[in-house]
Amino acid sequence: MSGIRPVRDEWYGYLGGTMTTLAFLPQVVKTLRTRETRSISLGMYLLFTAGVFLWLVYGIRLHALPMILANGITLLLSFVLLVAKWRWK
Amino acid sequence: MSGIRPVRDEWYGYLGGTMTTLAFLPQVVKTLRTRETRSISLGMYLLFTAGVFLWLVYGIRLHALPMILANGITLLLSFVLLVAKWRWK
Repeated sequence: MSGIRPVRDEWYGYLGGTMTTLAFLPQVVKTLRTRETRSISLGMYLLFTAGVFLWLVYGIRLHALPMILANGITLLLSFVLLVAKWRWK
Repeated sequence: MSGIRPVRDEWYGYLGGTMTTLAFLPQVVKTLRTRETRSISLGMYLLFTAGVFLWLVYGIRLHALPMILANGITLLLSFVLLVAKWRWK
């Protein structure tokens, strides 16, 4: 994946991606467990989800696997939250 | 900045970065206005801040200006939240 770049550069991305994705997880777990979505801002999550989608496209364009994985997983989680918001009030 | 890449690729990053950074802003504004930090998770923001810092380093390594700008600004905002959490209970 890394081509002309040293492989170890990618690890900043993998570690950063793991951390920012893990930081997002408690909200998803809480929402799925409580089915309570009243205090979640729809506008904020629509903006966030669209932004993460564009980061994913950018990562694909850069052939940067850490960006593709981290933003792919975060997009999925964020999409779960949007569906939860839409289904549960 | 783009070297061998077409310049337009960067715009996915600029647009995505603008959106995910804007999505983070309401929390910062709310915290600075209310000085209320009780319902903010310290562990989550420590993890998030460390993750964003690593994304910034990764962006610098990739010479990807959208990543450097977006993660630099988000790191600053996230750091403001951590300081607020530390100062206001």
